[in-house]
Amino acid sequence: MNNEYIKKITWRYAVKKFDPSKKLSDEQLSLVLEAGRLAPSSFGLQAWKIAVIKDPEIRKKLKDAAFGQTQVTDASHLLVLCIRKNIGEQFVDHYINTIAKERGVNISSLSGFKEGMLNSFLQKTEEEKDEWSTRQVYIMLGFILSACAENGIDACPMEGFDPKKFDEILKLKLDGFESRVLCAVGFRSENDEFEKMKKVRFPKEEIITEI
Amino acid sequence: MNNEYIKKITWRYAVKKFDPSKKLSDEQLSLVLEAGRLAPSSFGLQAWKIAVIKDPEIRKKLKDAAFGQTQVTDASHLLVLCIRKNIGEQFVDHYINTIAKERGVNISSLSGFKEGMLNSFLQKTEEEKDEWSTRQVYIMLGFILSACAENGIDACPMEGFDPKKFDEILKLKLDGFESRVLCAVGFRSENDEFEKMKKVRFPKEEIITEI
Repeated sequence: MNNEYIKKITWRYAVKKFDPSKKLSDEQLSLVLEAGRLAPSSFGLQAWKIAVIKDPEIRKKLKDAAFGQTQVTDASHLLVLCIRKNIGEQFVDHYINTIAKERGVNISSLSGFKEGMLNSFLQKTEEEKDEWSTRQVYIMLGFILSACAENGIDACPMEGFDPKKFDEILKLKLDGFESRVLCAVGFRSENDEFEKMKKVRFPKEEIITEI
Repeated sequence: MNNEYIKKITWRYAVKKFDPSKKLSDEQLSLVLEAGRLAPSSFGLQAWKIAVIKDPEIRKKLKDAAFGQTQVTDASHLLVLCIRKNIGEQFVDHYINTIAKERGVNISSLSGFKEGMLNSFLQKTEEEKDEWSTRQVYIMLGFILSACAENGIDACPMEGFDPKKFDEILKLKLDGFESRVLCAVGFRSENDEFEKMKKVRFPKEEIITEI
């Protein structure tokens, strides 16, 4: 087994206490965001956005909307992973146009693909579309957490926050997005008691079944 | 930027045509499964299972239940990522016991953590719990896809299948699980036309907002 790889993903844990003095370099932040941007999603549709929160005053407000969890203010950067609302023909057209431009192909050659996407959305309620997009955002979360671990950057995924308050503070709704999950990135404090705790995973035989 | 890392995740794409003659070594398969096992989940609860499908006869049946997509039979292995059903006190106790054993701590020292988990589940319907578990499974999917890319293994995440039929064929329900998403792993065929296509992602300014 590539023990080097496994060692890196074992090194990671959900950091509870970040060292507020340690910041990601521009290069490290770019790498994390690029991993998010390159993450796969169903149809490749990317119905998402990453809000990178740097403003300390806004982060204080967000902390209050996240049950006072210190990662929101103390990590180097807070990433708010969002879904795009109301996906339908307009956004699908934008996606199709982007493919045509990037690959230098005719839009008409993508009409079957476009119809397939639109049909799948027609069968879903707005709530179901949002949930589908949320699942894709969690793939991105997995990609970002993995990229952090591979590159010696600490992170903490967080579901414990009030999405409605976040959306208000960040004015995400105006932009057609809603927050779904957080990822604080930075560097662990030497005093984070969670660092010393053994990672707990169920043994292989409980998690993996061969058929 | 760590261009080596970005190069690897850019190398990956959702393989449509696998080379059926190329199989993952035992070591490669172990690495992929270990990446899944080590993936993070909310509370660290791991309400999931990976079914690794090797049996060719069963894979033929699954292909029919996945709109005939050839990745189901032609990839080296098919991973079916599942959620655990009916999470509640029994499973939480099992998790708490596992933590206590692994970390050598008293169960009583984990009572606050246990109550927190149980309270959060009490507030959810069975449907909401399933959706919450599904989101966690998508983090695992992100981890597995990332591990494959980092280690030169091809993969294809797949939502296009009939979960009910999969659960029947694999008898997952008996075991208390339900299928949620597929991940075929193996090696791309030289004739996969999708390999030549440029990866399409929206530009940074459309996906990333700094606040």
